[in-house]
This record gives sequence, C-alpha cells and structure tokens, in this order.
Amino acid sequence: MGSTWGNHIQITLFGESHGPGIGVVLDKLPPGISLDMDLIEKEMYRRSAVNNPYATPRKEKDVVEILSGVFNGATTGTPLAAIIKNENTRSKDYAQLLVQPRPGHADLTGAARYSGFQDHRGGGHFSGRITAPLVFAGAVAKMYLKSQGFEHLPVARILAIGGIEDPCEPTVSELENLSFRDERFPVLHSATEEKMKGAILRAAEDEDSLGGVVQVVTASPPPGLGDPFFDSVESRIAHLVFSVPAVKGLSFGAGFKLSAMRGSQANDPYRIQNGKIVTETNHNGGLLGGISSGMPVVFQVAIKPTASIGKAQKTLNLSSKQVETLKIKGRHDPCIVPRVCVVLEAVTAIAWMECWMEALKNGCIESAD
Amino acid sequence: MGSTWGNHIQITLFGESHGPGIGVVLDKLPPGISLDMDLIEKEMYRRSAVNNPYATPRKEKDVVEILSGVFNGATTGTPLAAIIKNENTRSKDYAQLLVQPRPGHADLTGAARYSGFQDHRGGGHFSGRITAPLVFAGAVAKMYLKSQGFEHLPVARILAIGGIEDPCEPTVSELENLSFRDERFPVLHSATEEKMKGAILRAAEDEDSLGGVVQVVTASPPPGLGDPFFDSVESRIAHLVFSVPAVKGLSFGAGFKLSAMRGSQANDPYRIQNGKIVTETNHNGGLLGGISSGMPVVFQVAIKPTASIGKAQKTLNLSSKQVETLKIKGRHDPCIVPRVCVVLEAVTAIAWMECWMEALKNGCIESAD
Amino acid sequence: MGSTWGNHIQITLFGESHGPGIGVVLDKLPPGISLDMDLIEKEMYRRSAVNNPYATPRKEKDVVEILSGVFNGATTGTPLAAIIKNENTRSKDYAQLLVQPRPGHADLTGAARYSGFQDHRGGGHFSGRITAPLVFAGAVAKMYLKSQGFEHLPVARILAIGGIEDPCEPTVSELENLSFRDERFPVLHSATEEKMKGAILRAAEDEDSLGGVVQVVTASPPPGLGDPFFDSVESRIAHLVFSVPAVKGLSFGAGFKLSAMRGSQANDPYRIQNGKIVTETNHNGGLLGGISSGMPVVFQVAIKPTASIGKAQKTLNLSSKQVETLKIKGRHDPCIVPRVCVVLEAVTAIAWMECWMEALKNGCIESAD
Amino acid sequence: MGSTWGNHIQITLFGESHGPGIGVVLDKLPPGISLDMDLIEKEMYRRSAVNNPYATPRKEKDVVEILSGVFNGATTGTPLAAIIKNENTRSKDYAQLLVQPRPGHADLTGAARYSGFQDHRGGGHFSGRITAPLVFAGAVAKMYLKSQGFEHLPVARILAIGGIEDPCEPTVSELENLSFRDERFPVLHSATEEKMKGAILRAAEDEDSLGGVVQVVTASPPPGLGDPFFDSVESRIAHLVFSVPAVKGLSFGAGFKLSAMRGSQANDPYRIQNGKIVTETNHNGGLLGGISSGMPVVFQVAIKPTASIGKAQKTLNLSSKQVETLKIKGRHDPCIVPRVCVVLEAVTAIAWMECWMEALKNGCIESAD
Repeated sequence: MGSTWGNHIQITLFGESHGPGIGVVLDKLPPGISLDMDLIEKEMYRRSAVNNPYATPRKEKDVVEILSGVFNGATTGTPLAAIIKNENTRSKDYAQLLVQPRPGHADLTGAARYSGFQDHRGGGHFSGRITAPLVFAGAVAKMYLKSQGFEHLPVARILAIGGIEDPCEPTVSELENLSFRDERFPVLHSATEEKMKGAILRAAEDEDSLGGVVQVVTASPPPGLGDPFFDSVESRIAHLVFSVPAVKGLSFGAGFKLSAMRGSQANDPYRIQNGKIVTETNHNGGLLGGISSGMPVVFQVAIKPTASIGKAQKTLNLSSKQVETLKIKGRHDPCIVPRVCVVLEAVTAIAWMECWMEALKNGCIESAD
Repeated sequence: MGSTWGNHIQITLFGESHGPGIGVVLDKLPPGISLDMDLIEKEMYRRSAVNNPYATPRKEKDVVEILSGVFNGATTGTPLAAIIKNENTRSKDYAQLLVQPRPGHADLTGAARYSGFQDHRGGGHFSGRITAPLVFAGAVAKMYLKSQGFEHLPVARILAIGGIEDPCEPTVSELENLSFRDERFPVLHSATEEKMKGAILRAAEDEDSLGGVVQVVTASPPPGLGDPFFDSVESRIAHLVFSVPAVKGLSFGAGFKLSAMRGSQANDPYRIQNGKIVTETNHNGGLLGGISSGMPVVFQVAIKPTASIGKAQKTLNLSSKQVETLKIKGRHDPCIVPRVCVVLEAVTAIAWMECWMEALKNGCIESAD
Repeated sequence: MGSTWGNHIQITLFGESHGPGIGVVLDKLPPGISLDMDLIEKEMYRRSAVNNPYATPRKEKDVVEILSGVFNGATTGTPLAAIIKNENTRSKDYAQLLVQPRPGHADLTGAARYSGFQDHRGGGHFSGRITAPLVFAGAVAKMYLKSQGFEHLPVARILAIGGIEDPCEPTVSELENLSFRDERFPVLHSATEEKMKGAILRAAEDEDSLGGVVQVVTASPPPGLGDPFFDSVESRIAHLVFSVPAVKGLSFGAGFKLSAMRGSQANDPYRIQNGKIVTETNHNGGLLGGISSGMPVVFQVAIKPTASIGKAQKTLNLSSKQVETLKIKGRHDPCIVPRVCVVLEAVTAIAWMECWMEALKNGCIESAD
Repeated sequence: MGSTWGNHIQITLFGESHGPGIGVVLDKLPPGISLDMDLIEKEMYRRSAVNNPYATPRKEKDVVEILSGVFNGATTGTPLAAIIKNENTRSKDYAQLLVQPRPGHADLTGAARYSGFQDHRGGGHFSGRITAPLVFAGAVAKMYLKSQGFEHLPVARILAIGGIEDPCEPTVSELENLSFRDERFPVLHSATEEKMKGAILRAAEDEDSLGGVVQVVTASPPPGLGDPFFDSVESRIAHLVFSVPAVKGLSFGAGFKLSAMRGSQANDPYRIQNGKIVTETNHNGGLLGGISSGMPVVFQVAIKPTASIGKAQKTLNLSSKQVETLKIKGRHDPCIVPRVCVVLEAVTAIAWMECWMEALKNGCIESAD
C-alpha cells in the first residue's frame, strides 16, 4: 500500500504541489490497450482549474507526459509512467504555515507524521493536486473497461453543494441513461445547478468555502464481480474513495437510510425483466455480499468544504504557543465538489478494473476481445 | 488482499458457516505479546449469541483453539493460527436457497462469483459467522496496542436501532471516558436502550429484522499515524469496516453534515489544553490529511437490517423463472447491531496496529517497552 | 510476504514442529478445481518418513484435514484451509538446545530473531516439517495446472548425494520423458541410486548426514509466462526454492557453467521442429528475459547436509560461555535430499500457477476449459 | 510484485531503453534520510559506460533527476520519484530484430509475453539499462543502512570472468576488510585483473562476449535479520538478484560445495571471539534458518555472457521460417560483469533495508538515531 494501490493493477502516485513534477506509475497493465489521447485530455480538463470560474486561481494546464509503457499508441504491458510538470507555483505564500498550521488542513498532522521533513509548500504531497495523475490513471482504466466490454462506465453527479440539494430522484432507468449538460458541473436539475453556482461565487466573495455530496453510478456492471470480506467491492471502492482528499463519508445504495428500515422493506425483491434477473428496488446499491448483482452500483460521497480559506480564523502559533488570527494567502478552490467528480469516477473505474481482472484470473469471466 | 488483509500484520480469514471449522492466521505479529485468554474469551462472548435474547437461536460457543504461534503464553512471532469448530449446524434448512435466492442476501451474487461452486449452506463463507475469528484477531490487536502504550482502545456504541436514536451528544471528554452498563448492548442513554431492546423483540415476533448505526471512538490515538492517499487512516478503516457483512455506510467526524457547512465552520481551531495541542471542535473526527491529530478518532457505521427474515417475501424461483413466496427457515438474528459492535472495535484495533507498525518501521515513534 | 507468498494465489503457512498442528491457507484459488484426494495422499506420502528407511525415525502420517474452501469435492473459490495434526512428538529431547545451540541450525538465529520467544521444540517453525503443508499446496497447484491444459508438470530428480553424482546427461527429449523407478528416490541411473542409498545408510550409522543436488524440469511450459525484473520466472522460483530449509544454491540451465562460456557458445540458436520454434541447445534453461521460451525449464538446487546429527560436535554453552561437546538426541534425517524432491516440485508448480494466472489476468492466454 | 518489489520499502522500476526516460519510485521511505548526492553520482558512474573501455560504446551520462520526495536535501517520507532521460539512442539499429530474434535474448519471449505490443527498440524494458534506476535505489538504501548504524555495507567483487578465476580465498577477516584498487573493476588479485581485462578486449575484438561470477559480501550484518520460509534473507536476496538481467545462478556460503560435505564438516562450530559469538568456519554464508547469524553474509552470482554479439550467428527468420545468419548491429557490452557489481550491491542493500525495517517494526531492534 503506501502510495501504491492494487493487486492486479498497481498504481503508484508521487509528487508534491510545488516540486518539479507529479505523476503516476501504472504497473501490471495488460498489453494492447489503445490510448485515446483525446479522452485523456478531456478528463484532465474536467479536473483542471483552467477556464473554470468556480475553481482556484492557480491555473495549471496539467499536460501529461508519458515516459514509458506506451508504444505505437497502445500499452506495452510494461510499467506506464506519466508525469505532469508543476508550472504555476508561488511557494513563498506558504512560509507562514510552518508556524501557523491551517485549521482543518494537514499542516500539523503532516509535520507529526513526517517528523518535520515534509515539503510544506502548497500542501506538498497532501495537495489535491496529486489527484491529477489519479485522473489520468482513471482514464486508462476507463479505456481498459471499454475494451473488455463494460457497457456503462461510472458516472458522477453532484447531489448537493453547501446544503443545496438536487431534488431529482431518478429512477433506475433514468440513472442508467445519466447524462449532463456540463460535465464540469454535472447536476441533473438545472435550476439547482444555478443556485449551486451562485452559492460558490458568494462563498468565494466571502473568502470562505463550501462542501457537498457526489453520487457515483455504474449503471450495469457484470454480475459476480468482487468478493466477500476484504476484497468486497465496497472495501475496494471505499479504500480508494477515502484516499481522495476531503472525503469524509461514503454510503452505498440507500446507505444510512437503510439502517432505519426493517428487513422486509430493505430487501430488494428479485424478478425477471427482459430475460435478465433484476431487483424491484435497489436499496442495496447493486452490491450483495460484497459482490455486484448486475443492478446499478450506486454510492454517495461526502466532501468537506475546502480547509484553506482567505477569511480570518483562529489558529495556534507553534512558536509563541498563542492563539492568533490567520489569514491564508495562497490560491484555493472555494468548492472542490465539481472538480472531484472526475476523480471519483477515476477511482471507481480503477476499482472495477481490479475486480474485473480478478474475475479474468479466476477464469470466471471472459473479455470481449 | 482476497481474504488476507494488511501489510505489517497479515490477517487471513477462512471458513464456511456449516463446514468443519472457521479460523484465522495472524502473520507477522511481533514476538512476545502476552495473550490474555480471559480478554479473548470476553470478546468472543460479546459477539456470541449464547445467553443473548436479542440474537439468533443458533448458539455457538466459539471456543478458540490456537494451533501455532503461541508458546508459554506469548506470541512467538511466527504465524498464529486459530480455529473455531462449527458445532451447531442444521444444513438441511438451506437446500431451498439454491433455487430461491434470498432477497438482500448473497445467495445469487455468490453463485455468480463462484460459478456455482460455493458452499451455500448457512451462507457459507458469506456468513456473519466468519466475523468470530475477526474478533479474535481484534483481541490480539488490542493486546498489542496496550503493550505499545496506547492509552485508549477503540470503543463502539450503538447510536441507533430501527430508527430509534440515542439522543446523547457526549462532549469530547465524555467520549474519552466512554463506558457502558452492558458491553453486549452498549448504549449511553438507558431509556433509549430499553426502547431499542423492545423494538428488536417486536421485530423478532414479526419474523422481521432491524438495522442501526454504530459509532466507534478511539479517544486519544498518538498523533502522526496514517498517511496521505492510499494508506490514510480513513482508507484503512474503511477497507476493514466495509469487509464486515451488512455495513452500508461510513462517515468520519461530522461526516455527511460536514458537506453542508462552510469552511469557516467546519475547520476545527487549534488551541493548547494542558500543554497539549487540541482542537476546540472535532468536526474532522481526529483525522486531517489521512493522519491522526491526537483528537478522538470518531466514525459512524450504517448497518442494514438482517436480510434473512422468517416473514414471507417475494423472490424468484431460478428453475421456474416465476416470482414465488419465500419463507426462510434457518436461524437468524433479528438485529445484528449489538453483536457487530465488538467486530467494529476489532477491525479498528487492527487498523491502528497497522498504522502503529508503519510508524515504528519509519522510526517515527517508539514503543513503550 | 512473511509466511504468505503470492499475488494471484496466496499461500500462508503456519505451525511448529511440536505444537498442536501445522497447516496452510490457500487463498484466491479459482472455484471448481476438482481435488484428487489420491494424488494428495500420494504426494504427502512421497515427502513422509513412513516406510522410508532413508528418513527420520519420527514417522508422522501427515493426514491432511480440510477445514474450508472445498465443497462437493471441488474448490469453492473461498480460502482453502488445511491442517495436519502433530502426533509423534518427544519435546523433552530438545531442552538442552536452548543452552547449547546446534551448529548449522537455526537455534541461535531463531532466538536472535524472535527475542527468545520462539518455540524451540523440534526446531519449532524452522522445522522441515512445515514443508508438509507446502506439499499439499503444491498438489493443489498441480491439479490446477492440469485443469488449465499444462501438459507436463514439474518433475524433480536427484543429481547427486554426498558427492556421488548421477552420470546421466539426458537429452532434451529424454528430459521431456523423465520417469523414475521410485518416486521417493528418483534417480535416473540405477547403479548410482544404489550407491547413494548405501552412502545414506553409512552416514546414518556414523550418526552423520549428507546433502546433495536436485534438478527440477518442467518439460514444456507455455511460452510467454513470467516477466522481466521482479516477477521473472527465476525470481519467483528462487523466492520459493530458497524458502525451503537447507537450500544453499540454485542455478538455471547451464548455471555457473554459463559464466565461463562465450556468448557465441552460450546463445541457444532458434530453429523450427515439428512446426514449433525450439532452440538447438538449452543452456538458458528455457528462460530468456525472465520469460519462458517453451523449451524445458531446468534448474538445479544445492541441499546442504542435515544440520542435526548425533555425532559429537563442538558448540558454545550460552550460559557458561564455554565450548562444549554436543550430542544431539532428537530424531533426524541422515539425508533429506530424497524427501525434498516433492517439495521442490510443489514450489515449482506454485510458481507456474502464479505465472499462469498473471497471463490469464492479462488476457494473453486462455485456459483449456 | 510486477515491477514493484518490497513490503516495507516499495520500489517501482519503469522505462524502456529507447523511450523518453527510465526511472524508479521509492515508496514508504522514512523521512529524514540525508541524500549524499556525491555518493549517488559515484554509484551511477560505477555502473555507467562512460570512460569505460570494457563497456558498450553507448555512453549515457545517467543524470538522475529527482521529481519528488526530497526536500532540503533529505527524504520527506513521501514517494521519491527519480528519472533518467535516455539521450543516446539509435533505434533504427533494432528494426531487424522483430523478424530475426536474437538467440539468448528476450526478443522472442518478450513478443510472446506482450502479444507483440512490447517496445522492441534496444531491448525495451528488458534492457540492462533499467538497472540504472536500481543502482540509484541501492544508493538510497545504502544511505539508509548507514544512518541506522549498519557498520559494513555490501561489497561486490569479481570472482571470475570468462573462466579466469581469482585465486584469492580471503579469510573472514580479509573479507571484512575488503577493499579494491578499482571499484569499476573490483578484483582482489591484481595479476588476474589484468588477465580478465585482456580477455574482455579480445572478446570485443572477436565481436563476442564473456560472462563471469561475482561475489557479494556483507561483512557483519546485525544478527536476527530475516525470517524462516518466504521471507528468508536468501529468498529476498534471490528474488532481487534473479531480477537482474543475465543472472543464471546464485549460491550462499559454500553453496554447491556444501552439497558434497557431511554434516559434521558443513556445520560451522560456534565459539566466542572478542566477546561476540562467531563461527570457526562460515560454510553457511552467515545465514541459518533464513536469518543472519552476524557472520559475513556471502553469496556468489553467475552471470551469463552478453547475448547480443556482433559475431555472425544463426537464428530463425520469423517471416520466412528459415534459419538465417544474424549479425547484430546495435552497441553492446563485451562483458557486463564489472558493471553488474554495483547493481548486485544495490539489490543486496535493498534486501537488507527490508529486513531491517521488518525488525524495527517488530520492535526487535533499535536504530542508531
């Protein structure tokens, strides 16, 4: 583990926000996955702050440079290393944070963990910026899944921002046809989208920040993926989702609401539809015993408001041991919820890739090739 | 991964509900952990259904037999294998489930995953029974943590059952002194406890089941444990928590409520108390950047109602392809929430053990020895 | 790692020589491997000392008891746990070894490693006895390989015992048809076999011991298995082979002799034979760049003489700090070379299983099913 | 595994000989290791072909560029990524090898493994060039070991080249004081060194190549490092050593010679010297039961002659299916034995790092800090 995840595919992230570059190594990829460079660019753009009025003023282009593992446009099967150079850094903004740790941020815990040797500039390795190579990895995972015959890739949508909730409760079939007007701000209900955007701009004016809730749906994964116990689909997805900075909650299907139901309500009755076994309801979010049932796999993720805010707040001065007022300079997102959507899609695709490969290895499934 | 978890300590679970026995191998334990057999017995008893009117009529004594890795009352440092024999099985109760899969259970997904080769009896490897060896592993982890100078071990309490919520909102210091009248039914508010017990008995009479919410608190873990990204404390705990059957949600600190706050509210301001850095609030649940801050680590777990209920429900007959009425025989828990508490403590202790060992390995911390 | 090996299949060994039992968990097996219990018994017998005049007087029957992971005669795909009870122990023989460590044995290093907490009786976890569950694991791997269409399983033969060398230098096609008169003492040249047997009995009379060399051949593995670098076939086999107690050397193909050749001699020229690409010579032992070429994979293993001998030898008394004469009681093998053959076949089969599963996972190969 | 090795430290190699760059990620390093950039440069130089008349005409400077994980001259504890750009490539030299695979090389097995998607240029990921980042990783491991109080780091010396053997049989104390006149050609016996150098130049003139044997000695590792079975010191070292291209054999201590001794000869008797427990002989190469005894850990590695030679040789034309004459262009080493010495030191240091960290984690040992 550490900064490496996975068994069948191994993903190693590296980099600091203000170092020379960040990147990822994807090890144990199969040979022959055609890389769609347009898709990669599009995914990187969805996460980036460029041309994005709801995001940080630090605009990084996030151009992915592939060092190895790709030849003639396809994966070779040897480790794929990709780097992204950091270009737009202003490290002096961060000097004060060594003495005045930001509340809600990793300044103090990072110093405890790394005995003071961490690169504190821009949050160092704790920066949300490290999710950029994760989005690249997710794009590769999506291409892999497509090539293996996965019909529907995971799709993320914003359920809530700053307490403003999308009232849409799409049916299973609507979820299966999920599509959005704006993939960088994916909300089903357009009037709510406008309210959310307004709320973000107001928070930005106040030098404050907002959080939210994102839902990720994989419309019809093959049944039989996953395992009971430590390799449950839930465990794999949860491991990755809680790796994403700012995530504080995760629920599958009806989630916490399930805990107030009786078994007779919660159980999703089986029936046959168009020759396929389905369930009438989907309270269990497409997962039973840690394994996909073939119904949509649905989960919700709670994102906390960005910890770095310009607004004055109290913190401890580690030298003087006095509580002081902190006004953070730096450049930060008033709300990362829209940008985190593509990151959550990425980790979901990576989790499915693992599950799929486990099934291939067991001879329980066959690829589309 | 698979049925093995961990890097510094490796835990391998095995067993089926109605096979000869279930068990666990704990590999890579350090030598010299004194095993307190009374504690082990007490922990096993907390999970067991023996003398437990709120639990399944299947009463297994769950006597742990240690095969290896212990000598003269202490761990040797070689793999510790422990088995529990299955004694009280009635396998014929389950024959029908091959044709009539239980809604909400793993009968159908297990058959998809294992190509029909799974042991279906009593849920096989999907049975909650496999959490018994996990509780044993957790007891060993607790002894390890104690021996290393961990002051406060993780403690679980019931927040809600069947929608009945414990109104107590204990302060940080109350949480630190968490103690219960009844460790097999750990509720802070005694009137609520009685209501919950009544609700379980009523659900049992109705041949139905209830779910609930459990909170786990580790009062003051050492600061600096955990990592950013894939080895965040959240990722490790989440991986293990979602391995426990019936878990459908997990939130840290204020969890989903955090997503509706502004940053200025959500950030927990630092101050000094008794010479120690603390935060005024603990919305972040003691974790920042994936790393412990020294504040109580708090999380909530949503448990769905037991899927196996006696009450008639609709399911598909896989032979006739018709929807039929299913009345499950077998013996089941009307509510597993009380029994799951010690399981969640166990996995939390295991997660801390991993984090602690990583810190030892890095030379960032010293054991109490 | 630790006592767990593997990525696609995970093998966890446990047990001490004089504890209640030893065993293994095989995790991540695919479902549906039919278990041939006769083959398992035969393999266990090949390793056992029962009816074996060249082996230790401690005669353990080594009956394998399967606790989980098998249902209706086939693997379920959930963890397969198997245990073997220790029955014939005489632990008092070993008390002196705490003070007088045996030269050439792990008594002293084990105490250093485990801070004195190790179970010293009969060598504890260091005992060659722990290879019994490894042979069981190997038998399962052999069944798996057969079910996947592997034509030729790995076969071990004795090349030398106590300096007596088998003069046979079989051609590639003879190696492919390797078969033996006595699988418990597999020597190609019968006169040499008799000499070896005589030498073992003489060493036993002298209360001394012999070592030897074993060759393992996999006649025609599928080409394309393995990887460059850390997952080379050589690395995987070497990792497992050096896990077997008493192994001190390993060479592939012409091995150390290759180091004295020129490239023009060492390179094996390609040609076509019966429509298949082969090499004229096989100095590289069927492996190039860490990957199987389809030619026989051949390696040699050096086994040291059993460290425990009855003959008087000098050792240090750890209390008195004086050099003293040690006469080991206990019961030991005068030569483990014949018994280690089936162990080396087992680990080779396990290594191939890993490689095969990696290929399946990559979609580079298809199983015979 | 794959291209990632290790549990406590995870090393991920990447790159192809003729791609944009090669590199390594070192994950899970502790914070605070001071990086001695001079040592790194010196180690890289030892492996490089620059100013090296016995090496390939392809002269790469191998400048290491650190992208992350180092701040203010010390490791941060977050992943350390380092890349080396490929500068001196002549890819057109390799076009013919797709049709005419080189005997003794991975051209054909690589195509089988990667379904034809591999980057064939310059051997691609199979190139010995990928050992450059491994040497960098080894340099970091050496610095770590030094900082932890390891007195003597592993040292490699050439035992034989092209059948010319160094007659020196140094005593244990001479081995402990091993030092060389020329670290890029480390031979103890100077007349033999000259003969070896002459033999390499003659082989180069003949457009042929030579192999050899390297010995690696770690003079006095702390006792108690390693484990029985899968994590034996031998298994760890063997795994890494056989990852190095061209290695075909490995023996510990007296190695294959041990197999012809009797136990009474092979066992190394204990005695006390200067208050420390030592053995009179060291046939077991400092390792008993997979664990270090404190005596010098000694092993020998067989290196095959470089497969790529200019001299005409026969190979198969995969298009015409005819045997043809092949004259390899490209630029190659007439003998890689001298360059491989620092690589073998590197992997040995990495193996010790793992063992040491395991001991730290177990609380069995304390660092010098």
